[in-house]
Amino acid sequence: MDELGVDVLLLSVGADLPYFTGYTAMPLERLTMLVLPRDGEATLVVPALEAPRVEERPEAFTARPWAETEDPVAIVAALAGAGSAPRAAIGDRTWATFLLGLQEALPQTAFLPASRVTAPLRAVKDAAEIDALRAAARVVDAVALAMRERPFAGRTEADIARELVDRMLEGGHERANFAIVASGPNAASPHHEPGDRVVAAGDPVVCDFGGTMAGYCSDITRTFVVGQPSGELADIYEVLFRAQEEAVRTARVGVSCEAVDAAARTVIGAAGYGDYFIHRTGHGIGLEEHEDPYLVSGNATPLAAGHAFSVEPGIYLPGRCGARIEDIVVATEHGPERLNEAPRELAVVG
Amino acid sequence: MDELGVDVLLLSVGADLPYFTGYTAMPLERLTMLVLPRDGEATLVVPALEAPRVEERPEAFTARPWAETEDPVAIVAALAGAGSAPRAAIGDRTWATFLLGLQEALPQTAFLPASRVTAPLRAVKDAAEIDALRAAARVVDAVALAMRERPFAGRTEADIARELVDRMLEGGHERANFAIVASGPNAASPHHEPGDRVVAAGDPVVCDFGGTMAGYCSDITRTFVVGQPSGELADIYEVLFRAQEEAVRTARVGVSCEAVDAAARTVIGAAGYGDYFIHRTGHGIGLEEHEDPYLVSGNATPLAAGHAFSVEPGIYLPGRCGARIEDIVVATEHGPERLNEAPRELAVVG
Repeated sequence: MDELGVDVLLLSVGADLPYFTGYTAMPLERLTMLVLPRDGEATLVVPALEAPRVEERPEAFTARPWAETEDPVAIVAALAGAGSAPRAAIGDRTWATFLLGLQEALPQTAFLPASRVTAPLRAVKDAAEIDALRAAARVVDAVALAMRERPFAGRTEADIARELVDRMLEGGHERANFAIVASGPNAASPHHEPGDRVVAAGDPVVCDFGGTMAGYCSDITRTFVVGQPSGELADIYEVLFRAQEEAVRTARVGVSCEAVDAAARTVIGAAGYGDYFIHRTGHGIGLEEHEDPYLVSGNATPLAAGHAFSVEPGIYLPGRCGARIEDIVVATEHGPERLNEAPRELAVVG
Repeated sequence: MDELGVDVLLLSVGADLPYFTGYTAMPLERLTMLVLPRDGEATLVVPALEAPRVEERPEAFTARPWAETEDPVAIVAALAGAGSAPRAAIGDRTWATFLLGLQEALPQTAFLPASRVTAPLRAVKDAAEIDALRAAARVVDAVALAMRERPFAGRTEADIARELVDRMLEGGHERANFAIVASGPNAASPHHEPGDRVVAAGDPVVCDFGGTMAGYCSDITRTFVVGQPSGELADIYEVLFRAQEEAVRTARVGVSCEAVDAAARTVIGAAGYGDYFIHRTGHGIGLEEHEDPYLVSGNATPLAAGHAFSVEPGIYLPGRCGARIEDIVVATEHGPERLNEAPRELAVVG
């Protein structure tokens, strides 16, 4: 906060608040906001009906419950402006309506996104955080492995997605965050919503799923095929496999984020599929599924020991097929360490 | 938009976007935003990797996919500023970081929350929307009814919550949004997070749960008791039952939202429990669990035919016990219509 000249930090929904206080704001229309002045005591402004949820930590913050007939924006503004703060950092995911209210209440204050303060801190994981990510990774590894023995043909995407969710919960995840199951031509849609399509012989099936365990996220993608793959699918998969290997190998401390992206892109481009790798190579992961650092062209940030991120190139042929391989990787002084170890080869299923 | 002098509407995460376009933005760090000028064509700015999810409706909007190396805020700003818009309404739940970016890119533009435009439109439900709310209500009614025959004692709150989720999904909900199970002294915490507490004889158990079916939400609360209730619980429940009845009866077209709140509060206050009813009486419901109109002191808005909302007074005795009764109600020309019909009496369970 000193470096950035930030006088007060304002945290609401999202992972910054639990990172610093252990408390997660409910994502509802009643404002929850931590007011943390650079010099001074932190106050958690919280709806009175949610105050019983808060475990107070007097050394970290005190709670200021607000009643239904009070205006929480005015309470936050009074606390934030008490030191007549000219510069406030506000949580990136805070609802726009609350930011607009605060801007009206504090017309002299300049606002910037809190991630400028929090993202570099959160991006570097300590040993306990890496252990938590590893434990979560083991659960989805086991799910991915088990799915290699399961039937896919004749089932809907939604049904397979439900199985992935159930297995994550059975494996100890407290929450399943998402389960993409994209089959046949849908495999060309990276963020496909699993639906009523019935998986058939010859289909590729991209399964990308993750959840939360002890607060930290998992995220893995494996691609399955019902019976023998077409020549085209086998071809793109072989390229993809090499691209993912190469990107992981590149992810050493000191290498830029964009260089890792370029490593995957170069392999795919050389094989003639460059136009069909339509997303970045990866994203940081921790308390949130997607956080800094992002492995994307334009991000010159060098990897540091403790950075944890996905490496997930994909090739998508619109209307035909697609594939993706994703592991979570940690940059360490001894080189890149994959947290996911489930087999990466194209899995032939029934 | 004309009435409010709004030149452009900017919609991102939340229900405004699907209400107008049928498309739901993914709540991720890649910006999705509909740019809808007052006079002009609407454009959906969407991440390229999510473009295959979009079903284009040329009469409603065209898609503008953005690649990973493009700046979506700059694209939105260019589209929004093309008519040099001095006044923009931005979706209430849009992430603060995107609003800050747009304010920097459009320094001459004044921003206000989009709900000023959209909330009054969305609050009044048409017949098809009420049918959808009714169908969703029937599912949770059946769950609430089934739970009266289920054992509670010896189970954790988390286990009972899991059963509520499973039953909502089995009943046809596409998504379970929440399941509060608050037992014993936890029943005094209105937004309690179900945990490891094991339900015991004599405990009240507040079950408040809801989900989404065909896009529309359900939300119901019933209170259970393991064996015979204590005198105190029986006493507060009798008061609560009358308060909820009275508030529902009051919810006629033309009556103000705050008068409905006052109706419940008067009954509870007269019985001496006024300090223990610590939240508003209800909230609107539709595509979102909580939306306009809010039944709260200070809201003088008169109820209109088609307004759909919860009526959910509660009494919470800290450290001891609590209870809540909630139904979804629609204001109609023929009087208030409850969509939930599961028995409201305190349910004695094993």
